[in-house]
Amino acid sequence: MQAWSDKRRAEGKKIAFVPTMGYLHAGHLSLLEIGRKEGDSLILSIFVNPTQFGPTEDLDSYPRDLDADLAKAKEAGVDAVFVPQDSTLYQDNYQTFVKLEKLPNHLCGLSRPVFFRGVATVVTQLFNITRPHVAVFGQKDFQQLAVIRQMVADLKFGIKIIGAPIVREADGLAMSSRNAYLKPEQRAAALALSKTLAAAKTLVAQGERQTNVIQQKAREIFAQYPEIEIDYIELCDPVTIDSVETVKGETLMALAVNLQGIRLIDNTVLIP
Amino acid sequence: MQAWSDKRRAEGKKIAFVPTMGYLHAGHLSLLEIGRKEGDSLILSIFVNPTQFGPTEDLDSYPRDLDADLAKAKEAGVDAVFVPQDSTLYQDNYQTFVKLEKLPNHLCGLSRPVFFRGVATVVTQLFNITRPHVAVFGQKDFQQLAVIRQMVADLKFGIKIIGAPIVREADGLAMSSRNAYLKPEQRAAALALSKTLAAAKTLVAQGERQTNVIQQKAREIFAQYPEIEIDYIELCDPVTIDSVETVKGETLMALAVNLQGIRLIDNTVLIP
Repeated sequence: MQAWSDKRRAEGKKIAFVPTMGYLHAGHLSLLEIGRKEGDSLILSIFVNPTQFGPTEDLDSYPRDLDADLAKAKEAGVDAVFVPQDSTLYQDNYQTFVKLEKLPNHLCGLSRPVFFRGVATVVTQLFNITRPHVAVFGQKDFQQLAVIRQMVADLKFGIKIIGAPIVREADGLAMSSRNAYLKPEQRAAALALSKTLAAAKTLVAQGERQTNVIQQKAREIFAQYPEIEIDYIELCDPVTIDSVETVKGETLMALAVNLQGIRLIDNTVLIP
Repeated sequence: MQAWSDKRRAEGKKIAFVPTMGYLHAGHLSLLEIGRKEGDSLILSIFVNPTQFGPTEDLDSYPRDLDADLAKAKEAGVDAVFVPQDSTLYQDNYQTFVKLEKLPNHLCGLSRPVFFRGVATVVTQLFNITRPHVAVFGQKDFQQLAVIRQMVADLKFGIKIIGAPIVREADGLAMSSRNAYLKPEQRAAALALSKTLAAAKTLVAQGERQTNVIQQKAREIFAQYPEIEIDYIELCDPVTIDSVETVKGETLMALAVNLQGIRLIDNTVLIP
């Protein structure tokens, strides 16, 4: 893969890269579409990264379908698909990790303590292997995008990071590979996330600026779905991910819930 | 610097890189000589990296002489010297660190808890900025060289790492920028390190294989220098840096001492 990229770079080609865990959906395809426009050569990686899953999380059951992914990649005009084995990225005696000191101490980082260390580490490896000029990440994992931007600036990767808008189903559910876990009755409850964000947008449009009022409204909506356990309902600075008490400038509203064992996240940027 | 390197790479040039903290001596010049032979373009960096110094260490007093260094670099045929400011590498809100989980739990890592995290982090930055094909490090910092090799393999940098032999003064003292701290009477005591290593080599040549016997001999030599406080006298595997009880294959013998506030290290590979 490294040699492939070096050759393209030597030819003066601009390389765009989209890292994924596979089981591609329309959200991933939107990233590939951006990558296709940004670069001369487009690389997709598919790797369910073990170091970003905690011991009680869904590493083993995470949905996989390589044949379908490769067909979608071809359709999307991808030039190279990188599908490493676990033992290629984490060889014997592996011991090097990339860790951020502040950004992970919020939101998903609190309930998933190894998650961002795993993400930063594998993305560093993937950047070194694919040597892109541009990389595209989805805004659905907003905190992950913030971590990647910070890491790229801190470690001087010299890679342009593009955040792509969340792609939603017709009824509002944010696209996610984990939606494959949802049974029909859970699928209906999962709409609570996008409903909550829509309600928050309406409140802000009506002039509401108090975080606690917006959070209370969100809790009222979630209360209608007893199968949902709230992990967090947070309003924060979109760069530092620090919590805010009032909606002054652009504010990230981020949600994470546990729906009978299935973790779902969603977010939107509130603009006062 | 990144643009300079990208341009050389686009021209098909092979880039060699020698990272240093400056105050160049004959040891550094030997690294540059290797780099000169290995690459078409040779980059030297000079940066006294604050994140690898502990709060009680000699960051502020570390010797610096940029004008002399630049003259020596020119003489050595260096093509580019990279001399970043602290605030260029560690900008506001800096928070990303590269950390190894095993190798630092030995030797210098025990008495300098932030050292290898700082080294791995700054070298990652410098690799990303200078984009070398080959990088040259001195074997005097043997554990550092092991850390860099491990990090390069783990994070898939795709950079060839060359370890260069220790360069010594005529009387055996290993070259070090910190030798500038030594007063004449301390300079004599500093020879205890190379004397100890020479005695160990003699013992091994005579058939001795027991680590504790070799360490005891070393302690006897150091006992003749009351101004020296031993940090460690270790025999270990040269790759994992794990301690060994007997000298079976190539074995790293590594020393660190405190000579009236001046930290000195030295090492050799014992070959049974």
